[in-house]
Parts: sequence; structure tokens; C-alpha cells
Amino acid sequence: MRIERPPGGPVSSPIRVTVWNENRHEQLEPEIAERYPTGIHGALAEGLVANLGEGVVVRTATLDEPEHGLTEEVLRETDVLTWWGHAAHGEVADEVVDRVHRHVLAGMGLIVLHSGHWSKVFGRLMGTSCTLRWRSEHDRELVWTVDPTHPIAQGVPHPMVIEEDEMYGEFFDIPAPDELVFISSFSGGEVFRSGCTFKRGHGKVFYFKPGDQDYPVYFHQGVRRVISNAVQWAVTVRPERAEPTLLRYETEDFYTGHSYGGALSDEARAALEAQAAQ
Amino acid sequence: MRIERPPGGPVSSPIRVTVWNENRHEQLEPEIAERYPTGIHGALAEGLVANLGEGVVVRTATLDEPEHGLTEEVLRETDVLTWWGHAAHGEVADEVVDRVHRHVLAGMGLIVLHSGHWSKVFGRLMGTSCTLRWRSEHDRELVWTVDPTHPIAQGVPHPMVIEEDEMYGEFFDIPAPDELVFISSFSGGEVFRSGCTFKRGHGKVFYFKPGDQDYPVYFHQGVRRVISNAVQWAVTVRPERAEPTLLRYETEDFYTGHSYGGALSDEARAALEAQAAQ
Amino acid sequence: MRIERPPGGPVSSPIRVTVWNENRHEQLEPEIAERYPTGIHGALAEGLVANLGEGVVVRTATLDEPEHGLTEEVLRETDVLTWWGHAAHGEVADEVVDRVHRHVLAGMGLIVLHSGHWSKVFGRLMGTSCTLRWRSEHDRELVWTVDPTHPIAQGVPHPMVIEEDEMYGEFFDIPAPDELVFISSFSGGEVFRSGCTFKRGHGKVFYFKPGDQDYPVYFHQGVRRVISNAVQWAVTVRPERAEPTLLRYETEDFYTGHSYGGALSDEARAALEAQAAQ
Amino acid sequence: MRIERPPGGPVSSPIRVTVWNENRHEQLEPEIAERYPTGIHGALAEGLVANLGEGVVVRTATLDEPEHGLTEEVLRETDVLTWWGHAAHGEVADEVVDRVHRHVLAGMGLIVLHSGHWSKVFGRLMGTSCTLRWRSEHDRELVWTVDPTHPIAQGVPHPMVIEEDEMYGEFFDIPAPDELVFISSFSGGEVFRSGCTFKRGHGKVFYFKPGDQDYPVYFHQGVRRVISNAVQWAVTVRPERAEPTLLRYETEDFYTGHSYGGALSDEARAALEAQAAQ
Repeated sequence: MRIERPPGGPVSSPIRVTVWNENRHEQLEPEIAERYPTGIHGALAEGLVANLGEGVVVRTATLDEPEHGLTEEVLRETDVLTWWGHAAHGEVADEVVDRVHRHVLAGMGLIVLHSGHWSKVFGRLMGTSCTLRWRSEHDRELVWTVDPTHPIAQGVPHPMVIEEDEMYGEFFDIPAPDELVFISSFSGGEVFRSGCTFKRGHGKVFYFKPGDQDYPVYFHQGVRRVISNAVQWAVTVRPERAEPTLLRYETEDFYTGHSYGGALSDEARAALEAQAAQ
Repeated sequence: MRIERPPGGPVSSPIRVTVWNENRHEQLEPEIAERYPTGIHGALAEGLVANLGEGVVVRTATLDEPEHGLTEEVLRETDVLTWWGHAAHGEVADEVVDRVHRHVLAGMGLIVLHSGHWSKVFGRLMGTSCTLRWRSEHDRELVWTVDPTHPIAQGVPHPMVIEEDEMYGEFFDIPAPDELVFISSFSGGEVFRSGCTFKRGHGKVFYFKPGDQDYPVYFHQGVRRVISNAVQWAVTVRPERAEPTLLRYETEDFYTGHSYGGALSDEARAALEAQAAQ
Repeated sequence: MRIERPPGGPVSSPIRVTVWNENRHEQLEPEIAERYPTGIHGALAEGLVANLGEGVVVRTATLDEPEHGLTEEVLRETDVLTWWGHAAHGEVADEVVDRVHRHVLAGMGLIVLHSGHWSKVFGRLMGTSCTLRWRSEHDRELVWTVDPTHPIAQGVPHPMVIEEDEMYGEFFDIPAPDELVFISSFSGGEVFRSGCTFKRGHGKVFYFKPGDQDYPVYFHQGVRRVISNAVQWAVTVRPERAEPTLLRYETEDFYTGHSYGGALSDEARAALEAQAAQ
Repeated sequence: MRIERPPGGPVSSPIRVTVWNENRHEQLEPEIAERYPTGIHGALAEGLVANLGEGVVVRTATLDEPEHGLTEEVLRETDVLTWWGHAAHGEVADEVVDRVHRHVLAGMGLIVLHSGHWSKVFGRLMGTSCTLRWRSEHDRELVWTVDPTHPIAQGVPHPMVIEEDEMYGEFFDIPAPDELVFISSFSGGEVFRSGCTFKRGHGKVFYFKPGDQDYPVYFHQGVRRVISNAVQWAVTVRPERAEPTLLRYETEDFYTGHSYGGALSDEARAALEAQAAQ
């Protein structure tokens, strides 16, 4: 299903990125359409190509496409999915959420951006409410690196200054991240864990706070650098995509797993079936 | 909704524990009914009372009760819920899972035991498949403490020897735990992260591996000690039960949050409503 | 050596705290002596007694006392040590640092305050440079809780406002903390991981940023609450104080460790000794 | 001082590895010299070249060389240092330990092998006793992967079987690792956190348990694969080697740090100097 790569080795073929965008603000609010003439997905795609060039192949997908543009085939050919949503989280079909979730657990990378904190798929992966405090009042956001050896932080100013952005503040209800890469502060004094990594199943997840429909944040060079770094980081180094599965192993046979046959003894199962047949 | 306690102070009133059990093996398989004459829930409840005495008030609840015995009222009066399920995870109503999940995020403690790793509520909280490798062949299990200052490990032998138990082995598909307290090995050579803590929302979660319907593990003194310690640990020290919520805060008003009014601007919402009305 | 306590049980006897202070600024700079008339140690001791009352027995110790007031006997009778130093880290005798370090690994709690980040003992426990960025220009500090279920955060406003304090900013060169409890922001926009827990050996360590000789921070009710909570948290729940030791165990004898006899075989050791004797 | 690399980009030039070995057993014990004819360092160097080919340039250094072969110049030209020591930890000069420590904090990778757990430099980086339980009785060691997306685990069997090795068991007194990659079990039933990553300063550290002078473990293909993967992982992605330093920053000048001028006010310093001059 995936190109085989030498274990631990560099990705030799271009990274296949799917940039997903809800794309509703752009249709409903003229000033946002003006700010993001090719959509938020367009701005994100441009940023990736600008930074990664031939190292990346980008496609976009949006909510209003059939299956939100995220068919089984598209996901199978996606190394890393980026997710932006805000006004219509509830319209994302549970079936598609299941599919994305399954692909992440099998090894697909996922970059969740800004208001995607409240997307169904991020909630599914985190297990928490993913709520926070917020305010959209043109705060200046400073993004500070607290993990300077992390690949996602390379080439990013310390701090990175975003002249205007929405404020997101703590408490951000997420599990303690595996790695905390960035912390943001805002003019008003709030702080936010704005760059967090999580491993889930065989997949790698990065949440990155900056980016709002009301500010031109996805044209910011530093923000684009972070997202490009994150895409490179999120590509699995495993040779194939596969979900973890529950398997039975006999003593001393460490490598041959047997499928799960159910929780009950043969007798109990037979009794239950007999009962059901009556 | 909860008794107020001095911040950080000791729990002065008894801990209210609800021991939940699927209770199906006990009904379907005579040798299990014989092993656990009062049910797995009965054995667990006895262990808690034996260790914590007047420090605990225990009730039990099972799958076949209305709402599985986990009504809103029961959960509201539960400081810590313990969960054992195996053969009938799929029969647990989603509505009850939602309710338990909500109470955990609001501050209820949760102890997930053994095959509860595949329960709906644990999967909901973890966001992963929670799969593993297994074998039920009378392996000896040794439970080693790797976090000797953790309250859950106090009074527990190092290692704790369980003469016979089911084998659970890695890879256990969970998020990296906040704290890894125990690692088990089995006669066959497998290892398992068998005692793991996770904070989710305002709640504390402990997963503990030992315990299977095919072995009298819940009569083991050390296993009972761990579960009793875990119950004490899982009681929140927050003064009240409340879910994290998304709130808007004006600049310099750090303490007065405003409810979320929706993602769209007033104009966009009006346009949408007009459109819907046509 | 220590009072036995029931495993995991509450601390029934008062917590014995030693508040250590360099106490040099108070002698050399009149305005600091005026700000802290009983010394920084005095202000800290008062705060603990105000919050914990009969739950605590506090003594103080300072740099200029013999052995800096931290004899073997004092440490043996100390459940939790708090550390404030700044101008004279280099004057702390290595022998005393060794002693404190050994007691922490054996189970003594340690609360490192503010400029104690650069103390010898904190560096010894962290293994890193513990450097940071700073500025003393009357910044307002906001201390935000990012782990709301942590006992150290109970009863603390979110955020806690400190009208004036020194700025400490990232990158703070510490290992990723076991738990990140607080993040501070400053008027100037900097952020800092200002409340961090670390387990080392059998001991619990908490670093807390606020507090500077140039500001009356240790009279702040919230700061005092945090330090009082931290003292309660840092008391080990292990029944006795003992350093981890390297021991040899024979197969199947899990509980009887034998002392380390050296790295070389008997023959090699004999050869070396013969060589040395020539 | 270092080759500049594009941020986050692949390492284009060969990784410069220095394999350090105490090299005493090989001189003192004939059967070990026979087992490792080119020394443990020779076996390790061969394994790296076998796996990484032209991607690596390996040199070796041993205790009995001047400055233990670890001069400032050698370290400056070392991307990753591997460390094996056992019988003569105490003979490693503190000055060299300081130097290695400083280079790790500045960005040099460090792979600590087996009995190196008790080396001065590992203790310095961890801050704990690094003690454990052990037995050298030909136990079979099984190395299980608990972080299957980690680059160090790629191409490694799950489990990896080492027919004979020394037993190392818990409690291993280290800080909770940033990432737990491997857990080992032994025939006797013990378990050990056998593959652990730690970031310290700007450097990346990996501890790996297998390998003992009494067994030919460093000829094992899987063990060599892990060490080769670890070497690739430990190379910093930062563009230059530099230690974290304490700097003062004026308000709104986020990028121009000023050196530390001392902890006392000008007046206090003048007073002290006057006093000293008397």
C-alpha cells in the first residue's frame, strides 16, 4: 500500500500532502474571501510548495466535495493530512472522521491547525474536550520555542512575531503532549501551548495554534516554515501503513499472531448461540 | 455538586466508589461463577473494603441493570469508578459511554482493569485502538515497579508475583502514559506496561493490567492493594466537578468568561439563516 | 531513620520543612533588608506557617552558618527543603551539595525557588545548564495553570497576577519536566515554564519561578499558597528514606540483593593487584 | 564550527562518530580479548560501517590515550559519541567529563551503552544514581519495542532475541525518559527500560542496555541496527553547536541578549570590593 523505504532512512520520494479546508468562511464572508483569494487551503498549499519545492506533492480537499474530498483512495495516497475547520465541524460526516482516524492510527501524519482544535477528528484522537479560552481582538502573538532541538522548530525565529492573530489561552484541555515545542503569549497576557506533538497508534500528530480566517496568518513566512517542518516530521518512518491489531501469540512463537476469536469460551458461545436460536 | 475540601488537603469524607462489572462470564460460565461467587465486582468491592475500611463507600453496578447501573445520579455521587468488561463491550450503550466520559472530564476518577482496555470508554479517552498481544496459558506474571515514589506503588512487593494470569504483551496501542508505574513480564518472556496513569480533562485515569475471569487474580493481596491505592489516587483534589468549557475573555478581564456564540460573524450567520428560510 | 507511615496514607505528623536562604542580599543591600525584614527565609517561613499551621514545623538555615546550616542531622530530620540562592551559588560547599543531592535521591522533597535555578544542587539534579533569559524591569507576571488537577495548583487563581516581578523567559534549559503545572507570561511578552515537577531517585523536586529580592513577591498570598501546596506534595509517601543502590540478584530470588563486588573477574582483579604490588 | 545544514533538512555529509571504549577488560581478561579481538570499540565501529556505509565516518578513542582520546578538537569534530565503560569509570578525568558534558549540552549526540549507565558523564546528565539490579548468568534477553514509530526502532525485530546477555533489572534509577523505546525481559523474569531517549541542553542522548564484555552482543545484527539507528537519530538538526547561555534582554528587544553581569547591584558589589580591599 505504501512505497517501501529503507528503515530509518530519508524519504526519497516527494511527500504527498492533502490540505483539507472547511472552506465556508471564504464562501460566506467577502472580507475573508479577499484575504484568502485561493482559500485558506490555497494559502497553505502555496506555503508548502514555497518551502519544500519538489520535496512535496500537494493536493487540496474541502468540506463540500463528495466525501469531503477524503475518500479511502485519497487517504491511502496521503502521507500527511493538514486540517483546518471552524464553523462547520458538525457537518463533517462521522464516516469520514472514522476513516481519517483509522488512517492516522495506521501511520498517516496529521497536522491540526488553529480552530481545528475543535474538529471531530482531533477530539477523537485526544479523548478530551479540547476547549480553551479565546478572544479575537488583534492581539500580537509571540511564539516561543521551548524545545530547540526539535525538527519542527528549525529555521523559526525565537520568538516568532505574528503582528495580529486571535488569542487562544489556557487552560487548553488536551492530554499532556508528548513534546511541547512552542508556547505562545498574547498582548493581553494570555499563554497557550501552541505547538504540541502526539503519537497515536502508528501515526504522528502535530497541533499548531496560529492561523485564523480574520488575519492573514498563513502568509507569514515563519508560520509557513513551521507547517512545512511539521509535514516533514509527520511522515512516518515505518515501511508500511498498518493499524495496530489485537493478536494471540502462542508461547515462544513471538512472530505469528492469530486473529481474535472472541471473548467467550467455546462452551459459553455455544450456549449463547443455542439460546439465541430458540 | 461536590463536598468542598480545603485545597490540596486530605480527603476527609469516605471515597464513594462504584465498581462496574459486565457480569456476563459469571452468568454464562459455571467455573467462573465458582471462582468469583459474588462476581468479579463482588471480589473487587471486598478488596476495597478490606484495605480502605471506613475510608470508602462502595456500590456495584452491572451491565444488565437499567442504564447499566450508571445513571446520571449514580455518577454524580461517584468519586471513582472502576471498570471491568470483556465479552460484551459492544453492548454498552453509547449514551452511557458519553455520560461516563463526560464525568471523567469533569473530575471523576476512573480505574480501568484488565480487558477493560477494549471498553468503549477507555478507547474514547485514549483515542487509539488499545490493542495488544495476548495468550491465556497460565503464565506467571511479575509486576515490577518503575516509579517507586508513586502513591499507587506503596505497599506493593517489588516484584509482585501473580502465580497465574493471562499474558498481555506489547505493543499496547495507547498514548504514552503520563506516568508509567508498573511493567509486567510473563513466563513466556513478553512484557507489558501494566500500570499507567493518564490525566484527561479534570479527571484522573489509571489502567491496571492484572485480572482475568480465568484466574482468581482479584483475591490477590497485592493486586487489591494496587487497586485500593489507585482509588485513593484517582479522587480529584479539585473542589468541584466541572467540565472544561470554551469561553471568550475580554482583554484584561481574566476571570469572566463568556459563552461561545458560534463561529461565524453576525452578517454571515444572518445570511445563512436567510438562505435557510427560503 | 524516618517515621513509618501507612503505605499511601496521609501524613499524620507535621511536615518538617527547612527553609534555606543564601541571605546575602539582605546583609549587603539595605533596601532588600527593608523589603524582607526577617530575610527571604523569614518571609517564606511565615507563609508556610500561615497556610499550613500545625501541619508544618519550619526551621530556617542560611549560607553563613556552619555547614550552611545543612548538617547531616538537619537533613535527616527534614521532609522538605526549600532553596533560595542568587549571588553566592559558588560559595555553597560541594560537600553540602553532595549531601543535599544524596538526601533528595533518598526521598527528601526539594522546592527550588526563582534564582535557585542556577544553584549547584539544582544543576546537579537536572544535568543541564539551567540558563534562561531575564530582565528586572518591573514586568507584571501572570502565572497560568496548565495542569488544573495538580495538587500544587489548588486554591491558586487562574491566572495568578503578580504586579511586579523579574522576567524569566525561554529557552529555559531544563529537561522536559515530568509535569508542567504553570506557565508565566510577562508584560514584555516573554513566557516561562514557571512551575515544573521532576522525580529524581526517590525524591520529588518542584521548581517555582516567582520571587526576587527586588520585589515583595514572597508576601503574595497566591505565591505562598503555591509554595505551601508544593511542600505538601513533595513529602514522599515512601515509608523510609533510602537511596537507590546497585544490587545483584540470583535467579528466582527477587528480594535478596547482594552488594556490588566490582566490575572485574576474580582473576583479573588478582592480576591487577599483583601488578600493583610489584 | 559546524557544517551549515538547511533547517530540518537531511544530513547530507557523513555523520562523524567517535566510539569511546574503556578498553580495560580486553587487556586484562584473555577470554574477552578473544571475544572482541579488535576491542569492544572495534566491534561497534564495524557495526556502524556495516549498516551506514558511506553515511558515517568512524573513529575510536580509549581510556588509556592522552586525554582519553577526547580532546577538545576531537569532540568539536564529533557529531555523535558512543560510550562504553565498566571497570574504570573512576579513572575518567573530571576535566574530560566536563568537556563531554559541555559538548552534549551544545548539541553533540551521545549514545550510552550497557554498563555506561554508571559512567560519570551519564550520571552528570541524568542527575540520579543510575543504579539498577543485575546478574550475569546467561539470561536470554528479549527486547520489545513500545514506540513503533520511533526511528531508532525501525528494522528491528519485535521482539529482538539476544540468546545470552547480562540481566539488568528495575528499578533503574533514571529520570522518566522523554521517550521509552524498548523494554527488555530476561529469562529470570526481570524487566528493564532498555532503550530510552533524553534531550539535555541542545543535545540528544540515547541509553541502550544490551552489550556486555562477557557475551558477543555487539556482533548481533539487531543490536547493531539499533545503535546505527540511534547514531542517525542523535545528530542534531540545529545548524550550529552552541551551549545555552544566560542572557539579559531589554523590553521589546527579543533578539539581542546581553551577557550576565553578576547578581548584585552596583552598590553592593562596590561595597563588597571595598571590604575585600581592606
